[in-house]
Amino acid sequence: MPVYTGIADLPTLRGFQVGALDAGLYAHFGKPTRPDLTLIASAAPCAAAAVFTTNLVKAAPVLLDQARLAANPSGIRAVLINTASANACTGERGYANAVQSAAWTAAAFGCAEDQVLVMSTGVIGTQLPMPRMQQGIAQLPPQLGSTPNHWQAAAQAIMTTDTKPKLAHSTYNGAALIGIAKGAGMIAPNMATMLSVIATDAQIAPLLLQEMLSRAADQSFNRIVVDGDMSTNDTLLILANGTSGVLIDETNARHFEAALTELCTVLAQAIVRDGEGVTKFITLQISGARSAAEARQIGNAIATSPLVKTAFYGGDPNWGRILAAAGRSGIALDPTRLALWYNDLQLVADGTPLNYDEGRAKLHAQQAEVVVRLDLGAGDAESVIWTCDLSHDYVSINGHYRT
Amino acid sequence: MPVYTGIADLPTLRGFQVGALDAGLYAHFGKPTRPDLTLIASAAPCAAAAVFTTNLVKAAPVLLDQARLAANPSGIRAVLINTASANACTGERGYANAVQSAAWTAAAFGCAEDQVLVMSTGVIGTQLPMPRMQQGIAQLPPQLGSTPNHWQAAAQAIMTTDTKPKLAHSTYNGAALIGIAKGAGMIAPNMATMLSVIATDAQIAPLLLQEMLSRAADQSFNRIVVDGDMSTNDTLLILANGTSGVLIDETNARHFEAALTELCTVLAQAIVRDGEGVTKFITLQISGARSAAEARQIGNAIATSPLVKTAFYGGDPNWGRILAAAGRSGIALDPTRLALWYNDLQLVADGTPLNYDEGRAKLHAQQAEVVVRLDLGAGDAESVIWTCDLSHDYVSINGHYRT
Repeated sequence: MPVYTGIADLPTLRGFQVGALDAGLYAHFGKPTRPDLTLIASAAPCAAAAVFTTNLVKAAPVLLDQARLAANPSGIRAVLINTASANACTGERGYANAVQSAAWTAAAFGCAEDQVLVMSTGVIGTQLPMPRMQQGIAQLPPQLGSTPNHWQAAAQAIMTTDTKPKLAHSTYNGAALIGIAKGAGMIAPNMATMLSVIATDAQIAPLLLQEMLSRAADQSFNRIVVDGDMSTNDTLLILANGTSGVLIDETNARHFEAALTELCTVLAQAIVRDGEGVTKFITLQISGARSAAEARQIGNAIATSPLVKTAFYGGDPNWGRILAAAGRSGIALDPTRLALWYNDLQLVADGTPLNYDEGRAKLHAQQAEVVVRLDLGAGDAESVIWTCDLSHDYVSINGHYRT
Repeated sequence: MPVYTGIADLPTLRGFQVGALDAGLYAHFGKPTRPDLTLIASAAPCAAAAVFTTNLVKAAPVLLDQARLAANPSGIRAVLINTASANACTGERGYANAVQSAAWTAAAFGCAEDQVLVMSTGVIGTQLPMPRMQQGIAQLPPQLGSTPNHWQAAAQAIMTTDTKPKLAHSTYNGAALIGIAKGAGMIAPNMATMLSVIATDAQIAPLLLQEMLSRAADQSFNRIVVDGDMSTNDTLLILANGTSGVLIDETNARHFEAALTELCTVLAQAIVRDGEGVTKFITLQISGARSAAEARQIGNAIATSPLVKTAFYGGDPNWGRILAAAGRSGIALDPTRLALWYNDLQLVADGTPLNYDEGRAKLHAQQAEVVVRLDLGAGDAESVIWTCDLSHDYVSINGHYRT
């Protein structure tokens, strides 16, 4: 089940309709106008599962969705997504606004309130502009459709500082999957939140769906690091409406999960590639660890080091910073057993530099995509993290995002 | 015992001599020439204590100094400091080079090898240029002196990406203290390592000296965050040669320790103010915590957040990012009890924004020095972290530091 990106050859996804429009949410905050309100809706009730931010400061839509999914995991019909305001740190009023937005969506689309989920991304601490939300939601139903262009419009309308829409699709045995996602800062994942919705017309029980999604997220979205911040709003949601009649159960779940994992991986990597100010895509392979968890913690320490990330930006094969970041990761390691490669060029063995060709090392470090492998020489476990550099543009984007 | 910075009114510090010169270490690596080798020496053996990096990847000089201080805490006579190469990740050869440098220093200055400590800062993974080290060390003795200009020269010769020398001094009851330090990246503390040497002519037993230094470091150098990286080389060393005859013991240690702590605080804050690309000095006060350790962990999460630091750079009072960073710190907190101030202007109460004046908030955020207070509403404990913004210049400096 290969995964494709973009809308070319988009499979038919039965029973789902999507639509987006400019509800004037950005305009309300004095910013240039753009599509900012999206609806993904299913004719049939969906089994639904989700993975949310572990940040203790959770946005109102996250709290509402968690409650609704717990109460009604088999009956979701619609998800409303707005940009411009994250509806986070907005107190009881913010929660009431999330509930109200869902109620308006239910009325406009024709389903029950508890069948609607909501997602928000944008600035923390701003209340949703409710009159504009109400008006925009009422105008959404006529926008709904299921063509490739409708999915493309949805992928575009959920963007914030993203520069490209992120859309991927796959099929399994007659069932289809379409996923959209947005980044682009606060990934590891904070603001300009990670949001992703995957829709499938396969028929899957909610518990199995949750198990598959959690494992897929762990192999994909949870392995990307842009800046090490973690959003108040991060949400990965899957809706399965069963309309294809293709049943996924223990006999074939493994295959479906493989397709789901690959789709999540493609979307997750697309978020890194389009991270704020990103000029380089770095695959960090941490091998020779005592456990995958330890490998991952070391990978995260490296991927969040400003010194490492600025060296990536400069195309400087500054492996010393990578070893230093590993050394402060909190994981026990033997510095004299470390080995390091840029792509296939080994720079370090036994914790000390080899007599490598600096010009060749620089050529590797200056490529747009670099695989950096650090071997700890301590065991057989390994982990992969996908990350990026820290550029002047990251500082420009985030120094002035809000004001 | 007020602490003064710079060389004006530098007290007489008996029995110490310092000197610096250009040994061509930078030139060896093809960089512009500058003073790069410094000696601080005492006529009498010193009680010595130190605090070193907790990074598991420790530079050769750190390993050597740890061994020498353990074996000979009352007999240190000299410390040799070089820039241009950190002598980290250099294996057995690097360790042998540190030993050899100390041996040459002992021969040149006229003391025993085990009375010499060494410190290095600069690029990780490069071996010391030993012929130049040998020649430079041999030329150091004629440079030694104890005038303010000699101390100023030492403070300048240990700089790497620092833009200003850092020198502070104080007196206690007839004894003097002079401290020098360098930053400027990898502070929390990685490369362009934090190094600091404090010399005093007070007479102090090594154990008491170590206790006082450890506590002083915990209140000063361990509370600064530039980029969250931690060096392979960080070292804070104090030498007490007793030449003043002023005895510090349990009867007056409290007073001496207060002066030492203030001196360390002044040097630590100077490192942040001169951090790589720094345009703003931020005092983070985390109050209302259940414990000081929890307050500190939350402060560190905020101080290392690229999104928070770029907002500081932009002069944007983007408190949402601060709350989000606190929420992912790993410390349990109740988001609905959070309160936040920029200087004396409260922006957040009960986890939600007050109806504050955005223009006033921005004026506060755009000052060169800002006090940000986050109250957790959970207890009576508090902690302070001194940190800075993340600017375009930080990226420029670290994107191209090495190449």
